Parts: sequence; structure tokens; C-alpha cells
Amino acid sequence: MKSDRQRAVQMLKTARGQIDGLIKMVEEDRYCIDISHQILAVQAILRKVNKDILHGHLNHCVKEAFSSDQAQTKIDEVMEIMDKLMKG
Amino acid sequence: MKSDRQRAVQMLKTARGQIDGLIKMVEEDRYCIDISHQILAVQAILRKVNKDILHGHLNHCVKEAFSSDQAQTKIDEVMEIMDKLMKG
Amino acid sequence: MKSDRQRAVQMLKTARGQIDGLIKMVEEDRYCIDISHQILAVQAILRKVNKDILHGHLNHCVKEAFSSDQAQTKIDEVMEIMDKLMKG
Amino acid sequence: MKSDRQRAVQMLKTARGQIDGLIKMVEEDRYCIDISHQILAVQAILRKVNKDILHGHLNHCVKEAFSSDQAQTKIDEVMEIMDKLMKG
Repeated sequence: MKSDRQRAVQMLKTARGQIDGLIKMVEEDRYCIDISHQILAVQAILRKVNKDILHGHLNHCVKEAFSSDQAQTKIDEVMEIMDKLMKG
Repeated sequence: MKSDRQRAVQMLKTARGQIDGLIKMVEEDRYCIDISHQILAVQAILRKVNKDILHGHLNHCVKEAFSSDQAQTKIDEVMEIMDKLMKG
Repeated sequence: MKSDRQRAVQMLKTARGQIDGLIKMVEEDRYCIDISHQILAVQAILRKVNKDILHGHLNHCVKEAFSSDQAQTKIDEVMEIMDKLMKG
Repeated sequence: MKSDRQRAVQMLKTARGQIDGLIKMVEEDRYCIDISHQILAVQAILRKVNKDILHGHLNHCVKEAFSSDQAQTKIDEVMEIMDKLMKG
């Protein structure tokens, strides 16, 4: 779990660096299409972090809750996130 | 659960009807933008059905598995679907 | 353009067939995860059709409008679809 | 256009601040579901910036290209971004 967290922090720092780059691109009035591709690149990193976080959650927190009375709460949380992922 | 299934079937029949309409639209060489909006409408219905199906799954199948040794399998299945939802 | 339309019709017919299969799966109370994967497969086909339709639109309709006074209308239409694609 | 850029920079700075918060959340081992919601919030901001950038692009750069021989290049660029948006 510790190395998972380190990897997430590393990816988030990469995303932050790319957003710094994006701010500069917009301020320098760079070409829109290049900016748009760069935004999608940051989103891809965030999606990857989110995937890792949710995998870890299901494999650890949810699994531990299986025999407890927190089960419904854990399931509701996962459903809420899935709904957001589906934007439905 | 039975009424859930009936609702899913009803929505899928609506989606099928709209796809029939889409086939006609393409064959009649209708305006691309209208076709594209219509495709997105069908996708919205399918997303809604999928959301209902996954809610039911988590609330029933996954919950029942909580005290069984199928837990990891159920979790892996949910993760696989979430990955597809995130296309990452 | 005619072969583009034929390909779109073919893919839409495949999607319709898969929705028929989905209706049967739900009616037969098949396993939720299998149904969910199948829904995502149909959505992938529809996304592919939509991509082809929009490519065709930009390469033909929009390009023809470039020297006409319909330009803004065509651009607005493309933006409306892009917004839907981004669900933002 | 200048105020558009300023708004984009403002939103990107908000996104950067939220990523700083996310890094802290992960380092402090905060609850996965809270982290996941927060990631989706950042993605919503980035999607909004991207939407504004692409609207500006279509309304200005693409429109200007309409009577020039750059038309196909501009269309290809928009198609490439749309493909990424559809992840198809």
C-alpha cells in the first residue's frame, strides 16, 4: 500500500507539472489544439490515478468490510463513484 | 428485482427502436448532425440501463458474496467493469 | 460516401442484433456482469459509428460550408456535439 | 479573447490547487472514496477548460481558415481531438 501511495503521489506531481505547463501555454497564447491535447494528457494521468485508487479501495477497504455491518455503506460509496464515472 | 428487469427490458426495447430509426436515417441520407445527436441519445439510454444493472449487482450479488469465499472474484469483476467505464 | 453509409448501416444492424441479445439476456436473468460487458460492447459500436459520421460531416458538409455564409451554423453544430461528447 | 484566456488560467490555477490538495490527501492516507471524488472534481474543471478552448478555436481559428487553403488541416485537427474525446 505504501508503494501504491508513492506511485499516486508521483503521478499527481506529474499532473501538477503539466498544469503549470498548461498555464504557461495559455498565458503565451499558444495554439488551441496543442493546449487541448495537453489537457487530455493530464486527464489521462488523473484517470490512471483514480483507477489505481479505486482498485486499492475495492481490494482492501471493501474486502475488509465484507463481514462487517458497514457493507451497505461501502457498496453505496462504490455505486456513487461509478455513477460519476458514467456521468449518468 | 423482477420490476428492475422489466424496466431494463423496456429501456432496451426503446434503444432498439431508436437504432431502427437510426438505420432509416442513414439509409435516407439524413443530416449528419441529427444522426449524431440521435446516436448520443441511444448511448444515454444504454448508460442508464448499465447503471441500473450495476446498482442491482452491487446491491444483491456482491452483497450476498460478502461472507463467502467468492468475494475476490466479485470484486475483480466490478473492477474490470469500472476500468472499462474509465476507458483507462 | 455511399460505402460510408453502408458501413454505418452494417454497424448499426450489428448493434441492433446485440441489443436483441441483451433483451434476451435480461429476460433470462443472466449474470449482471456479463450483461454489463455486453452493453459496453454495444456502446463501443455506437461510438465508432458516431466517429465515422462526424468525420464524414467535417470532411464534407463543414468543408463545403467554408466559403458560404452557413459557416457559423456549421461550427455551432459541431460545438454542440463536442459538448455532448465531453458531457460538460 | 483576452478575458477567455484569463478565465482559462484562473480555472487551471484552481485545478492546480486541487491537485496540491490531492497530493496531501494521498500522503496523509485519507479515505480512498474522498480522494476519488476529488479527482473527478479536478477532471470536471479540466473538461470545462478544454470545452472553452475548443469553442474559442472553432469560433476564431477555424472560422478564419474557412476561405484559406488551411481548411483541411484545421478540420483534421478538430477530428483528432474529437476522436480523443470519444476515446474510440
